Amino acid sequence: MATQGKVITCKAAVAYEANKPLVIEDVEVAPPQAGEVRVQILFTALCHTDAYTWSGKVLDPEGLFPCILGHEAAGIVESVGEGVTEVQPGDHVIPCYQAECKECKFCKSGKTNLCGKIRGATGFGVMMSDRKSRFSVRGTPIYHFMGTSTFSQYTVVHDVSVAKIDPKAPLEKVCLLGCGVPTGLGAVWNTAKVEVGSSVAIFGLGTVGLAVAEGAKAAAKRFGVTEFVNPKEHEKPIQQVLVEMTDGGVDYSFECIGNVSIMRAALECCHKGWGTSVIVGVAASGQEMATRPFQLVTGRVWKGTAFGGFKSRSQVPQLVDKYLKKEIKIDEYITHNLTLEEINKAFELLHGGDCLRCVLKV
Amino acid sequence: MATQGKVITCKAAVAYEANKPLVIEDVEVAPPQAGEVRVQILFTALCHTDAYTWSGKVLDPEGLFPCILGHEAAGIVESVGEGVTEVQPGDHVIPCYQAECKECKFCKSGKTNLCGKIRGATGFGVMMSDRKSRFSVRGTPIYHFMGTSTFSQYTVVHDVSVAKIDPKAPLEKVCLLGCGVPTGLGAVWNTAKVEVGSSVAIFGLGTVGLAVAEGAKAAAKRFGVTEFVNPKEHEKPIQQVLVEMTDGGVDYSFECIGNVSIMRAALECCHKGWGTSVIVGVAASGQEMATRPFQLVTGRVWKGTAFGGFKSRSQVPQLVDKYLKKEIKIDEYITHNLTLEEINKAFELLHGGDCLRCVLKV
Repeated sequence: MATQGKVITCKAAVAYEANKPLVIEDVEVAPPQAGEVRVQILFTALCHTDAYTWSGKVLDPEGLFPCILGHEAAGIVESVGEGVTEVQPGDHVIPCYQAECKECKFCKSGKTNLCGKIRGATGFGVMMSDRKSRFSVRGTPIYHFMGTSTFSQYTVVHDVSVAKIDPKAPLEKVCLLGCGVPTGLGAVWNTAKVEVGSSVAIFGLGTVGLAVAEGAKAAAKRFGVTEFVNPKEHEKPIQQVLVEMTDGGVDYSFECIGNVSIMRAALECCHKGWGTSVIVGVAASGQEMATRPFQLVTGRVWKGTAFGGFKSRSQVPQLVDKYLKKEIKIDEYITHNLTLEEINKAFELLHGGDCLRCVLKV
Repeated sequence: MATQGKVITCKAAVAYEANKPLVIEDVEVAPPQAGEVRVQILFTALCHTDAYTWSGKVLDPEGLFPCILGHEAAGIVESVGEGVTEVQPGDHVIPCYQAECKECKFCKSGKTNLCGKIRGATGFGVMMSDRKSRFSVRGTPIYHFMGTSTFSQYTVVHDVSVAKIDPKAPLEKVCLLGCGVPTGLGAVWNTAKVEVGSSVAIFGLGTVGLAVAEGAKAAAKRFGVTEFVNPKEHEKPIQQVLVEMTDGGVDYSFECIGNVSIMRAALECCHKGWGTSVIVGVAASGQEMATRPFQLVTGRVWKGTAFGGFKSRSQVPQLVDKYLKKEIKIDEYITHNLTLEEINKAFELLHGGDCLRCVLKV
């Protein structure tokens, strides 16, 4: 490649401050160093976690400004740094905010999809090798975000954060496999392990909540979502309404909003003795959830999930294959298509009621 | 039996009011009705839940006064009511506060040891058939407690609340299998399912906590308890101390106290990705536990246990057999022996630091 080893100047959406419109800038993207991969992003979607970080509400130290947000995308490898063997220029890839090094205590445990290898750098908006950013605008470094920073025509990621996928897959669709859809499917399949015949309550029907419904279809009581309950139509607490509707509570519940009061309701609507509640949503910084210990002593289980428990590099390619075999849906979640230049409009859409996912052509 | 079908007048310790000394009274115990069993209690131990109820701190409506407390005991069936087939006069039994009817939704679920059949009565201090008590003193009804009321020479329990055991077992020892020891062992074996090689933190080393240690010995890292950590010797929060001591946190933790702050510490000292915390202790009425959702989203699991997840009628006899085969310890927990008449002294001992279990000869 003509660009290999050189700085690439390209367009990116820079978030300079919380809640201020993103600015489309000419960003300089340094070449990948050892163990790094530079990816040309072709399509990126917006996720509520981007909006959330942009709003300044997330846990410190993540969400440093100025930064390049974005973590649900697909692209093509432009070049690789020294020692990178698992991908090469031209490979179609999905950047993964949840890394998988296959070597650390976490990856080897067989018990979690979390990976510890690069957290100490990505959590601070920098790359591992030199704890610096690969992005700059007129000499000023711009922080990375979630180890992905996909609101840019080019980004640099760690090699443990990139999943190589089937080149036949349409990148404008499978970019969604970078976050929301796997999070919902995996919450059901990997974290809760919902069995045939189970009843399921889902709190929040955005992309993640709908993917939970989709994942539960195969496993749960009936095919599809059978009841919609609007808490505003009931005077009683929603957990009590659901317990009464389901003869004692649901077998599984999923909180897909990030609201600590709803997390409590989601736990307490579970059936005594075995009901399991999974927290999928991300709460605002410093917020705490609470319940009476009696809820757990009488057999309910409270868990959470990150990226649906999927091991990113190993399993994202499998999800792409499932999509190509029409075993999972993606297209249905894409309600809007815009371009990177229109990103501020896309954020507005995300806060409206009729947008699930807006995919940006980069 | 000469007493069959007749009211028995015997000695019992009556709790008339919270925090007032128990009174040894001549109590009239009515004959068992259909589905009920009258048991001569020979030995009963005191458990902190008795003391707790007596202190007036428990959840309403349990802990109604006047009542006969006690739920960790052993005795011999004196007579049975109509339709009782699984035990007969002369059988050695352990009354079980956690019933097992083998017929209800809970018992049939295969997912829990809780039983729903008689909760609606035992929770209100009465028997199921007529919602009345079988105890009275000079014509005044005295409430049952936890469906067991073992601080009496005779008690009446539901047939689903009585485990028939090997008559060779010494009742002055196996009475402990009515609560504390199974709760601790089962928290490890049934609820947490601790695997070989796991690290375990136990908060609170009373009978239940020591039984957790005992249960974990077979499964956990090393044989026995390897480290004692006194929170008072550290300035940092105890969860942080433990995370540092164990390179990221423990695999399993058990809260055996009933303190909501300790419940939080027990969760937060668990390892990211897989650490599981089990609440065993009973908290005071109305108290709530809290944590940041991030703790669960990053893979920790929060559960609880009641009677260690053991199915009472099916599994208490198996625990008795394990004791007879010297596979589990009981004797070591018995630090004091007194008589029913000395019960107020026994409660004082329970609050001292050197009493685990005090067994009363009834």
